[in-house]
Order: sequence, then structure tokens, then C-alpha cells
Amino acid sequence: MAMGLVAGFLTTVSFIPQLIKGFRTGKMDDVSISMPVLLSLGMGLWMLYGIGVDSIPVIIWNAVGLSLNVIMIGLKVHYGRRSHPSK
Amino acid sequence: MAMGLVAGFLTTVSFIPQLIKGFRTGKMDDVSISMPVLLSLGMGLWMLYGIGVDSIPVIIWNAVGLSLNVIMIGLKVHYGRRSHPSK
Repeated sequence: MAMGLVAGFLTTVSFIPQLIKGFRTGKMDDVSISMPVLLSLGMGLWMLYGIGVDSIPVIIWNAVGLSLNVIMIGLKVHYGRRSHPSK
Repeated sequence: MAMGLVAGFLTTVSFIPQLIKGFRTGKMDDVSISMPVLLSLGMGLWMLYGIGVDSIPVIIWNAVGLSLNVIMIGLKVHYGRRSHPSK
């Protein structure tokens, strides 16, 4: 349980520096949008899996990670639209 | 179990488009290195957690995700060194 909480903390907060970098630079060009999209879908399923196996760490951290990745998708779309049309 | 496998598949393959994008463009400037570093540490711990709670999906997918994130760190370091020294 404790290890799951620490593990979840690390994998979840991992997206925060990416979001900060995106906000600061206003650039997400080198970030593939497929990454946060697939992560959001997967983390939504992990949440359901966590409910099934009754694992609080799996539920909590995937809920937070899902939220952060939705923000990352928003940043990517926003900055992609504002700057040059990339091919 | 099946849901855990699908969830793990999605969150794990999510890093592949980012790696492909990095390889293709030769640029990882907008990617924060803290993200794959924290993900690698966290996924290593998730693996141990999975062993503890005897969850095969948690073990398998975090092992693969860990490998992909180590590659991402390599790409970031390699392309960061080759191009301009970023502040």
C-alpha cells in the first residue's frame, strides 16, 4: 500500500514538470499529442481496474494523472493552434 | 485482469508515439526530462508494488513502460547535447 502510494506519487507528479515547461515556454511542438491522449484513455481504464481490485492507490493516482494529461492535451491543442500549422 | 491488460497496454504504448516523434524530428526541446525520469522511478516502484499484490498486469506493463521511458531519457540527453545548450 505505502509503496503503491509512493509509486503513484512519482508517476503522477511526473507530468507536472511537463505542464510547467509547456506553460512557461508556450511551446509543445516536440510533444506528441498521442502520448497524453493514450495516457488519458489508459488511466481512465486503470481507475476502473483499481475499483475492481479494490486498490486505493491505483484509483487515486490514476484519477489525478488523468486530470493532468487532459490539461496536457489542452496545452498541446492551444499552443498548436496559436503557432504555425505543423504538418 | 483483462481491463488491467488493456489499461496497461494503452498507458504503455502512449510513450511510443513520443519516441517516434523524437527519432523523426531529432528534437526533444519541448519535452521536460523530469517527466521520463520521474516516470521511470515511479514505474520501477509500481513493478515492485505489482509483485507485492500479485498483479501480473501491473508488473508487465510497468516493466515495458520503464524501458520506454529510459529510451526517452536517452533521446532527450542525446538530442539536448547535439543541439544548442538550453538554459
